[in-house]
Amino acid sequence: LFLLADTNTKVNCVPLLPMLSGDAHIIVIPAGEQFKNLEQCQHVWEKLIEYGADRQSLLLNVGGGMVCDLGGFAAGCFQRGIRFAHIPTTVTAMADAAIGGKVGVDVGHLKNYLGLFNPAEWIWIEPLFLKTLPQKEVMSGVAEIIKHAIIGSPALWDILQHIDEIDQMPWKEVLTQSALAKMKVVEADPKEMGIRKILNFGHTVGHALESYFLKKNTPISHGQAVGLGMMAETRMAEEMGILSSDDADKIVVLIQRIMDFSDILIPPYDELITFMQRDKKAVRHELRFSLPDAIGSCRWDVEVKNPKNALDWLSEQAATSSLRYIKDTL
Amino acid sequence: LFLLADTNTKVNCVPLLPMLSGDAHIIVIPAGEQFKNLEQCQHVWEKLIEYGADRQSLLLNVGGGMVCDLGGFAAGCFQRGIRFAHIPTTVTAMADAAIGGKVGVDVGHLKNYLGLFNPAEWIWIEPLFLKTLPQKEVMSGVAEIIKHAIIGSPALWDILQHIDEIDQMPWKEVLTQSALAKMKVVEADPKEMGIRKILNFGHTVGHALESYFLKKNTPISHGQAVGLGMMAETRMAEEMGILSSDDADKIVVLIQRIMDFSDILIPPYDELITFMQRDKKAVRHELRFSLPDAIGSCRWDVEVKNPKNALDWLSEQAATSSLRYIKDTL
Repeated sequence: LFLLADTNTKVNCVPLLPMLSGDAHIIVIPAGEQFKNLEQCQHVWEKLIEYGADRQSLLLNVGGGMVCDLGGFAAGCFQRGIRFAHIPTTVTAMADAAIGGKVGVDVGHLKNYLGLFNPAEWIWIEPLFLKTLPQKEVMSGVAEIIKHAIIGSPALWDILQHIDEIDQMPWKEVLTQSALAKMKVVEADPKEMGIRKILNFGHTVGHALESYFLKKNTPISHGQAVGLGMMAETRMAEEMGILSSDDADKIVVLIQRIMDFSDILIPPYDELITFMQRDKKAVRHELRFSLPDAIGSCRWDVEVKNPKNALDWLSEQAATSSLRYIKDTL
Repeated sequence: LFLLADTNTKVNCVPLLPMLSGDAHIIVIPAGEQFKNLEQCQHVWEKLIEYGADRQSLLLNVGGGMVCDLGGFAAGCFQRGIRFAHIPTTVTAMADAAIGGKVGVDVGHLKNYLGLFNPAEWIWIEPLFLKTLPQKEVMSGVAEIIKHAIIGSPALWDILQHIDEIDQMPWKEVLTQSALAKMKVVEADPKEMGIRKILNFGHTVGHALESYFLKKNTPISHGQAVGLGMMAETRMAEEMGILSSDDADKIVVLIQRIMDFSDILIPPYDELITFMQRDKKAVRHELRFSLPDAIGSCRWDVEVKNPKNALDWLSEQAATSSLRYIKDTL
């Protein structure tokens, strides 16, 4: 048994797993997305060799999305693939990153340019770890949970209707329903040839926002970007007649009630559109979106000829401060 | 379309593919097994990014086993796997390395320690390239062809009965039968959980010989090592009563008639056994062999308690020069 942790989870999480960590070799990588690279993979491979890992070994990734992604990739390439499992320690990883078999590392600024489709042997979701997290990380992960409710889980949607603040979240129930919703989609289409694309709801606009703010040196969290992206893309679906205005309003209200977008000034349409056209999923600059057609149901590969109105609407929301503040600080 | 070649095949083989190479970006790596490493993979990944490869791209590997192994691994990791195909240019690659989906690179002296099970989209076997090869490489590849005949192809065995010299080889027919024999085994067991292990016939002793001569700084070819390994392992099968003496003699005669082992002095048993016990497939130092039980049929995971007689016999063969010389020079 080999444990992979980062410098944070080694201190804050691994000690909470005394039964597992007793006999295991522990491999540690630096914490932070910027270390999700091939160099750190090489470190993991060198340690696996040094500690004598073989085809019967199991690599147990203890950490957030970065550790799970990198560990899954490292295990998938070692001796043509050894087994690995995840113990995700962040909301983002529990709700999203650890589930679905997408593993990989970045090449410079290119996200997940090296990677595999390689599902974990098992995933242990333990809400206990959430106490080790800053509020901001929790909020970021909630965006993917809301997404899973909208695109495929009426059961999760119903739970979220009763939540006004993050602190009220019944984590065990919410994370279970969120994982089930994602797994249902992934099992139907492991390699993202079709329906799996619905997991990109909110992400076409979201990634553009994330890149824009990163370039401006005022980064926003992935969750905030996806939350705003889902709002804009919901309006696109409404405008195209795919989604009823009633459902669209309900989705926007839920996102605004649970999430927090204070101090985020949405860029003008012209700037955002150039970032969107660079999207990996764009086909010859045509924008393809995954858009909900009802609460709990989503289409994919929808071509949107004119995203301007929806993005202008998002800008206005921010300018008029109608993006409600739920938390004072994040 | 992206072409991967090494410094040899770029000059000797790519020009023979004018229709393919016209529009393709060509990525070149240095020739030689010592460059089958992660550093060269990174070079391939950087070039794929620079030339704008995406999920629709195809990487076409033009070369021997080294190029096919490295290219298949590089393609398998790039953007979670792009398509790749092989145009093998050596007998070894046509008969063995390009077929079966095992791809990977070495880590220092550890063979294929990073890799994937990842089959090519297609493989184009073109005997034309054999004219570009030195005799020694041709001879090396013939060992795997003989192996495929022994473990699973009576049709190929029959063809080989009429061959006295390499130059007589009806390549198209032989390579087709050899590929079919390997593919049948690989399709039944892609991840080497069981029957695929029969492809290791000759390789337990063979790898030990290869390591021994490499350490002595008088390397022999992989094919020579496997040829000698098959002879010794055939005698083991005979001694254990798995294989009839009649079939064992036929196998040994065929190998000696087609192959050439001049100037190879087999090491004494005590030296060889330590190399064998380090084999990746050894389970707690117990030696497991894949042994033929008839011509065209093979068992796997056979524990051999006493390999000494067979290895002593191999030594004697060499000492008494009864390993016949077919070619004057290699």
